[in-house]
Amino acid sequence: MGEGAEPRAAARVNGFACKNPMLVQANDFFFSGLNIAGNTSNPVGSKVTPVTVAQLPGLNTLGIAMARVDYEPWGVNPPHLHPRASEILTVLEGSLLAGFVTSNPENRLITKVLHKGDAFVFPMGLVHFQRNMGYGKAVAIAALSSQNPGVITIANTVFGSNPSIAVEVLAKAFQVDKNIVDQLQSKF
Amino acid sequence: MGEGAEPRAAARVNGFACKNPMLVQANDFFFSGLNIAGNTSNPVGSKVTPVTVAQLPGLNTLGIAMARVDYEPWGVNPPHLHPRASEILTVLEGSLLAGFVTSNPENRLITKVLHKGDAFVFPMGLVHFQRNMGYGKAVAIAALSSQNPGVITIANTVFGSNPSIAVEVLAKAFQVDKNIVDQLQSKF
Amino acid sequence: MGEGAEPRAAARVNGFACKNPMLVQANDFFFSGLNIAGNTSNPVGSKVTPVTVAQLPGLNTLGIAMARVDYEPWGVNPPHLHPRASEILTVLEGSLLAGFVTSNPENRLITKVLHKGDAFVFPMGLVHFQRNMGYGKAVAIAALSSQNPGVITIANTVFGSNPSIAVEVLAKAFQVDKNIVDQLQSKF
Amino acid sequence: MGEGAEPRAAARVNGFACKNPMLVQANDFFFSGLNIAGNTSNPVGSKVTPVTVAQLPGLNTLGIAMARVDYEPWGVNPPHLHPRASEILTVLEGSLLAGFVTSNPENRLITKVLHKGDAFVFPMGLVHFQRNMGYGKAVAIAALSSQNPGVITIANTVFGSNPSIAVEVLAKAFQVDKNIVDQLQSKF
Amino acid sequence: MGEGAEPRAAARVNGFACKNPMLVQANDFFFSGLNIAGNTSNPVGSKVTPVTVAQLPGLNTLGIAMARVDYEPWGVNPPHLHPRASEILTVLEGSLLAGFVTSNPENRLITKVLHKGDAFVFPMGLVHFQRNMGYGKAVAIAALSSQNPGVITIANTVFGSNPSIAVEVLAKAFQVDKNIVDQLQSKF
Amino acid sequence: MGEGAEPRAAARVNGFACKNPMLVQANDFFFSGLNIAGNTSNPVGSKVTPVTVAQLPGLNTLGIAMARVDYEPWGVNPPHLHPRASEILTVLEGSLLAGFVTSNPENRLITKVLHKGDAFVFPMGLVHFQRNMGYGKAVAIAALSSQNPGVITIANTVFGSNPSIAVEVLAKAFQVDKNIVDQLQSKF
Repeated sequence: MGEGAEPRAAARVNGFACKNPMLVQANDFFFSGLNIAGNTSNPVGSKVTPVTVAQLPGLNTLGIAMARVDYEPWGVNPPHLHPRASEILTVLEGSLLAGFVTSNPENRLITKVLHKGDAFVFPMGLVHFQRNMGYGKAVAIAALSSQNPGVITIANTVFGSNPSIAVEVLAKAFQVDKNIVDQLQSKF
Repeated sequence: MGEGAEPRAAARVNGFACKNPMLVQANDFFFSGLNIAGNTSNPVGSKVTPVTVAQLPGLNTLGIAMARVDYEPWGVNPPHLHPRASEILTVLEGSLLAGFVTSNPENRLITKVLHKGDAFVFPMGLVHFQRNMGYGKAVAIAALSSQNPGVITIANTVFGSNPSIAVEVLAKAFQVDKNIVDQLQSKF
Repeated sequence: MGEGAEPRAAARVNGFACKNPMLVQANDFFFSGLNIAGNTSNPVGSKVTPVTVAQLPGLNTLGIAMARVDYEPWGVNPPHLHPRASEILTVLEGSLLAGFVTSNPENRLITKVLHKGDAFVFPMGLVHFQRNMGYGKAVAIAALSSQNPGVITIANTVFGSNPSIAVEVLAKAFQVDKNIVDQLQSKF
Repeated sequence: MGEGAEPRAAARVNGFACKNPMLVQANDFFFSGLNIAGNTSNPVGSKVTPVTVAQLPGLNTLGIAMARVDYEPWGVNPPHLHPRASEILTVLEGSLLAGFVTSNPENRLITKVLHKGDAFVFPMGLVHFQRNMGYGKAVAIAALSSQNPGVITIANTVFGSNPSIAVEVLAKAFQVDKNIVDQLQSKF
Repeated sequence: MGEGAEPRAAARVNGFACKNPMLVQANDFFFSGLNIAGNTSNPVGSKVTPVTVAQLPGLNTLGIAMARVDYEPWGVNPPHLHPRASEILTVLEGSLLAGFVTSNPENRLITKVLHKGDAFVFPMGLVHFQRNMGYGKAVAIAALSSQNPGVITIANTVFGSNPSIAVEVLAKAFQVDKNIVDQLQSKF
Repeated sequence: MGEGAEPRAAARVNGFACKNPMLVQANDFFFSGLNIAGNTSNPVGSKVTPVTVAQLPGLNTLGIAMARVDYEPWGVNPPHLHPRASEILTVLEGSLLAGFVTSNPENRLITKVLHKGDAFVFPMGLVHFQRNMGYGKAVAIAALSSQNPGVITIANTVFGSNPSIAVEVLAKAFQVDKNIVDQLQSKF
């Protein structure tokens, strides 16, 4: 898809199908459902509904994606990063604490409480998170600078990989006893 | 701004200031006001509220921007394009006819009526538009794949440039009498 | 083609075939015919002869293309843009008025009369045009910063798309009566 | 520096000084000391000696950097990522367990034990680590696809940021009691 | 210059000045003189007249440049390459033998005799040359995929650098006696 | 391979196979043998052992490669360039004279004698070389900013192409008699 990747039907770009531009239909550029709240009944109390090239093939090569994020009261979109994208997020409903951490050696935490209509930026590849700061639901719309941004949720990656990272590595990395590592790994 | 453009205070990247990362504050990554409806009292009946590097300096180098679009009943976001960005737009309120035209020689018009929660893609550099298809207000959020996407509104560019494009050029281009060109130019 | 896209025969890059470098021939990098004047017997009085990846497969991945433009006396290369390229044009014969319009909100028209041996730049994605300023033929050579620059001719895109853009959209965009829109659409 | 960023002395590119190419000296492209073992007397038992644009100005704009990594016996280069680079690492001395975790939702751990002369790849933005698998010292040389790759050490970023991430965020993200979060934060 | 590098007067991009777009003039995008034959009274019998960002500031950030090449009868544009650009060349007058050599290990020479109106492609970074194949003058226009393509003329670089490359290096590289290296170096 | 090029098994990117990320194995990211000295029994007395996408498929799309270079006493890695990469090289053993030549018109030779642990940079596309400055073996590790950097060895390209570059072209380019060109060509 994408005019930059034109004209043979069988072509693939970035591993995704690339339709003949003579054959594209409006539906190739269409996604439905961002009005539907995601199911936040999970341990972190948040849910992301992504609109990337996996859900909307017409995004291929275009360098853009979107997502809706739902948060239950005090729900958290846990620390994560996008290996191939920057992000801007705006609040549709509720209030969020949004933050990101700069890279070594400063590891500065930059945070802001966001209300309806506020927007905040998470630079390329940095660890970031949001937390619903209220007793009601919160909703945000995020935009990402890649059609295939990827998501690396820190806790799942570090303590919930398949197979697990060796406990000796994690014990040293987090400077804790192995039984705490075990405890952390048991959650994922 | 942007971690990719680090460490001297006086540096400029892409013509915009690039702060020392030791000195950045949360406000450098923050924008407020996307909850406020734009004033649509104008001939086309729509208003774009942009959040680009000009409004939010922390976007510099990050390849992402956002915008809110308000439409009065039957209002039109007129045919335009972004010389440096693709776009994805989602409807928050109301119903929109969204469309874009593919490049030469096909000039295919691809359209879709969008309802709340629908999203539609406008590929890089193509002419596109939206029209509110109802008697109530409509609102959309758009994301763009550049911190500095630029906007070229076709009518203003072609018939409202400063100074004007020679009437002989436009008469030939649009294959109409000069008095119709004059009439078109008089509106902008 | 292009050394950056090497070695399997069946591979495709950007939707175009990518030959095994062991099998490429000189003809894969060759195009013939830029000495032949294009047929300018058309309403605008100009003709572009492109040399892009569609005509010269060896250009794939190389980020460059060329074109010859012929103009009959007072002929116009009508307002258009390239969604994926900047352009530099030099005059081989005759005199041309060349111009482009900057993006919103200024919409400044930048023009120059060009004589033989003069060159002029049209930045990425901006609307531009040329007009033969004389009673003889004019000829130019243009270079573009993409092997697949694309062309969006404003008049054809806006008033001649297939199907047509709704007259209500265009009437509002150009601030004219629908019968003028009808008239404009009837030409394309 | 870098020929792509030529000729004014005062110019800055990416926030770093960019010398006039007429004035560059061999020392602008030179770094000394990769033969010296880093001091691994620290909790994780490893030390990275980087050669990026911060240490070697001539790397600016060139998209490449290098590093030496020293590991004491069973020392760990803890889970981290580079927000702007892929990496390839080769073992000069000793044996290392190297691993990375793919992004959501699979979070697959891909590992390999590397011996002298082996090389392993860590794709752009993914969390990765190494562990010395022996009773002797280990040494590796890594190459990175950016002059300014950045480093995000997971433990330091998540549990050692300045100021700290709110304990409620981390407790939910890692699904543990706040006192375990406190314990983790106290180490950094 | 370049819309992608907008709005502060003092800004520099790629080491070149970047004007405030409100202040740009048509002359910033203009170059004159490609109709004038270069002086080919030199040992190789050819002359390149470049139009790059150094001659035409408005090209900055636009990724395109042009050049005129003049050849006296049997004159040679000697083997050279552009470290940052691909090239397409078209013949305006005369006949040229054009060729390039693919990279290791094949080092295939791909050549074509070009007549008026023919075009030929020289892929990014490959060594290429042209030779006038006739008793009259020849002229070509070349387009390059960078505003700052750079030129590395093989003979001057290898045998005419300042200071000279050590004769031992060149004798081994070219597998000839040092006196032949001396002879080659004495020409430049 | 590469997370940026995900999920269909049959896909190809840059002409190389791109595996389904669900099916990748550690061995797709692994190379063995950089501890083995290359065979330097050849006229120049050096040998490069490359680790590019051709040897290590998991490098595809990642923009990085590595190489080991072995030099016999006084051996030379002859003048060459990488059309798609910058390079940084560090000495593991011995002493090397390293140099590169800037582009036209200066053709400055920038050199440095490197000892164990020293690193030196060769900017994108510039001609560079190394010479072992001692009576013992020398070894270096180089990193390159492309998974497919390409190598153009000047002597082989200019005097050893297949078929040969016309002697008239080379005689004029190097300003020597044809018999010297014949002599140079006979070595390759």
